[in-house]
Amino acid sequence: MALIAAFHEANSNGKSVPKIICFEKQEKVSGLWNLTWKTGIDSNGEPVHSSMYRHQWANGPKECLELANYTFDEHFKKPVPSFPPRGVIQDYLLGRFEKCSKDQDIRFNTVVRNVVEDSGRFIITYENLLTKERCDEIVDYVIVATGHFSVPFMPSYPGLESFNGSVLHSHDFRNAEEFKDKRVVIVGSKYSAEDIALQCSKFGAKKCIISYRKNKIGFKWPENIIEVPECQKIVNKHFYFEDGSIYEADAIIFCTGYNHHYPFLENKLRLKDATNLVYLENLYKGIVLKNNKNVLYLGAQNQCYTFPMFDIQAWFARDVILGNIEIPDEETMNKDINTWFKRCMNLKSNSGALDFQKEYLHDLMKETNYSSFEIISKIAEMYHTCNQDKIDDIMTYRDKCFTSPYTGTVAVTPRKNWFDSLDDSREYFMREN
Amino acid sequence: MALIAAFHEANSNGKSVPKIICFEKQEKVSGLWNLTWKTGIDSNGEPVHSSMYRHQWANGPKECLELANYTFDEHFKKPVPSFPPRGVIQDYLLGRFEKCSKDQDIRFNTVVRNVVEDSGRFIITYENLLTKERCDEIVDYVIVATGHFSVPFMPSYPGLESFNGSVLHSHDFRNAEEFKDKRVVIVGSKYSAEDIALQCSKFGAKKCIISYRKNKIGFKWPENIIEVPECQKIVNKHFYFEDGSIYEADAIIFCTGYNHHYPFLENKLRLKDATNLVYLENLYKGIVLKNNKNVLYLGAQNQCYTFPMFDIQAWFARDVILGNIEIPDEETMNKDINTWFKRCMNLKSNSGALDFQKEYLHDLMKETNYSSFEIISKIAEMYHTCNQDKIDDIMTYRDKCFTSPYTGTVAVTPRKNWFDSLDDSREYFMREN
Repeated sequence: MALIAAFHEANSNGKSVPKIICFEKQEKVSGLWNLTWKTGIDSNGEPVHSSMYRHQWANGPKECLELANYTFDEHFKKPVPSFPPRGVIQDYLLGRFEKCSKDQDIRFNTVVRNVVEDSGRFIITYENLLTKERCDEIVDYVIVATGHFSVPFMPSYPGLESFNGSVLHSHDFRNAEEFKDKRVVIVGSKYSAEDIALQCSKFGAKKCIISYRKNKIGFKWPENIIEVPECQKIVNKHFYFEDGSIYEADAIIFCTGYNHHYPFLENKLRLKDATNLVYLENLYKGIVLKNNKNVLYLGAQNQCYTFPMFDIQAWFARDVILGNIEIPDEETMNKDINTWFKRCMNLKSNSGALDFQKEYLHDLMKETNYSSFEIISKIAEMYHTCNQDKIDDIMTYRDKCFTSPYTGTVAVTPRKNWFDSLDDSREYFMREN
Repeated sequence: MALIAAFHEANSNGKSVPKIICFEKQEKVSGLWNLTWKTGIDSNGEPVHSSMYRHQWANGPKECLELANYTFDEHFKKPVPSFPPRGVIQDYLLGRFEKCSKDQDIRFNTVVRNVVEDSGRFIITYENLLTKERCDEIVDYVIVATGHFSVPFMPSYPGLESFNGSVLHSHDFRNAEEFKDKRVVIVGSKYSAEDIALQCSKFGAKKCIISYRKNKIGFKWPENIIEVPECQKIVNKHFYFEDGSIYEADAIIFCTGYNHHYPFLENKLRLKDATNLVYLENLYKGIVLKNNKNVLYLGAQNQCYTFPMFDIQAWFARDVILGNIEIPDEETMNKDINTWFKRCMNLKSNSGALDFQKEYLHDLMKETNYSSFEIISKIAEMYHTCNQDKIDDIMTYRDKCFTSPYTGTVAVTPRKNWFDSLDDSREYFMREN
């Protein structure tokens, strides 16, 4: 969606743009944001893409997500609270998309089965999931924009195979109400663990036991959330943790992240970096595949910034394709990658990662025309503020108001605070606020 | 596994057999029988194949599953009860496999990505899931033996998207203990619905509400299982059924069957028949693809007979490949298919389907050397008896004893009846019985 917006912008400015073909295995746009009650395999026999759940709310201020060429004021026509539920954010994304996607060749219910490099071009083999027909297209560039939050990474513990309760990955978590009155072990210490614990707590779980590997999340949790170190074994329903504590639980939810997974690309075109890094070793400028500069990845790194980063990367990718940005020789490219990558490997804190990725975005913006350094710096500041809000009170950080870096519009205070909001529908949110 | 046994038998009798390559996406043999606690997507990013669950026991006498060239006596060395748990049956399958699979070229962790017909042969594109390398093989015959119990068919109901409980398909059902003290709606009226209701009841579900589409299953259920017709809508946790009844429930389990799904075959080689039929319109003798006689499907129809049918089909497929069975011209083939297919479409009862599939197996056996008509007739009789046992008492049918059609060995009465057996491990079962 970001790439389409990028080319739309170039086209609106009178530039000639190439033909774009989008292959989308779902029946509509917006990827992960398409909430479904389905888990596992979808009705076409494909892995369910979405990892979203009901009652999912923004976990950072929406003002950090605002798109340069489509402000919240333009979309919502009125100030709205800073932390809306999923459906409201999806609606905003769809608003921008509608504005800039006219006459696009988007092939829905269509999955790419294979991409092979052939004399400098690429043969794309794709399949229509409804007719089962397989066809080829020959293209000059491949943009990989499938994301990397769909294929779960799952550790295991001795005794898990005979645990008498629910076992799931956050990818398949759909509804916290399922865990009402239950004792839930939540494995992980990143955003998913934090938010799924909060959700379960909010919707009446008896106890949430967050099991971290290295460091505690460390917020001032409500009474029904505790943190313990790694699990050593499970015996029936008893979980034994490294600090000697033992808890009985009814469910275990793995919030243990995702793997890079690009089964549709031939091996040499696949990104194989570790996930959970904010900079990747095999992508020049975090975008261009080192060993084939006509393969561009969008949003493949871990994200502090999300929508603005996707947009900036898309603008950069567009300008590579339009010939406005030149990819340097291998040595220069490697030197640039190594500098960033080394810094990334030395990052010690969330706050450090935030500043690092800000500088990375600044670096991209030097070469393309998206927004301004000042805006991105404002967004970074808001993220820092929000992180402090979380430390101050994890239960109320979503009730704060932020200011649009583009329009100066100040968000309204939500009529109901997040903890008391049990209706996450767009209709309710827009009517009440 | 059946096809390997078939070729092993021919080879042992001095026949020259072709090179066979097996592609297996799991890390070990026995397909569906590999129980896993995982659901959805496996650690290689592939859909989890198995649909089995803990505490799954045979739902027909093991004497109906006995393999002609590997008796239970040979494997177990002693008489065992007629209804063993999953692990015991898997162990038996593996026993036969070990005996006949020496020097086989089985490529584990390897998934077939594409099969394309090319001048009468086939190009197989496969991928090693560990190295991600993709390679081709050119072969003369393709045997599709992936089965059709892996890709769920999922209906929907108004309100399902906002149901505040667990939603899953029987493919992802792993453990009845998860539903202890819960009220569970079970959609379906076939083997899965029947058995998952029994499991949940046995492991302490508060209430199991089986929702059938056409006909009640109609057994004398225990007090915590009831049957109602189709669901019309769901409001919060309330299910509204066609007969006007309303029940509150905490979970819904779809036991609604599976789709044929062969994403690894080019379209013209894919079987597209409806599932749930005991005879298929596009397979000659239920095996040979009508529009390409070098593509052979094993076990693609719905099964009254399972292991013996797979074996007989494998023996038949082997003899097609060895040139011992000739595939007739199109007209003869169509006539034969139509005769069987029409009869299949007119089947009215389980009992009729059982006799129909017996005759189908007899028909195959005329052309190959597997076992004898007499044995298959004995198996059919045992199934009829077992069906009557279920009608008499669904809670005790698994405590009955049957007699091996091959050795005359009479099964021993289980030390503990099925309902009281809470340990389903092979070790426990073999030690106690």
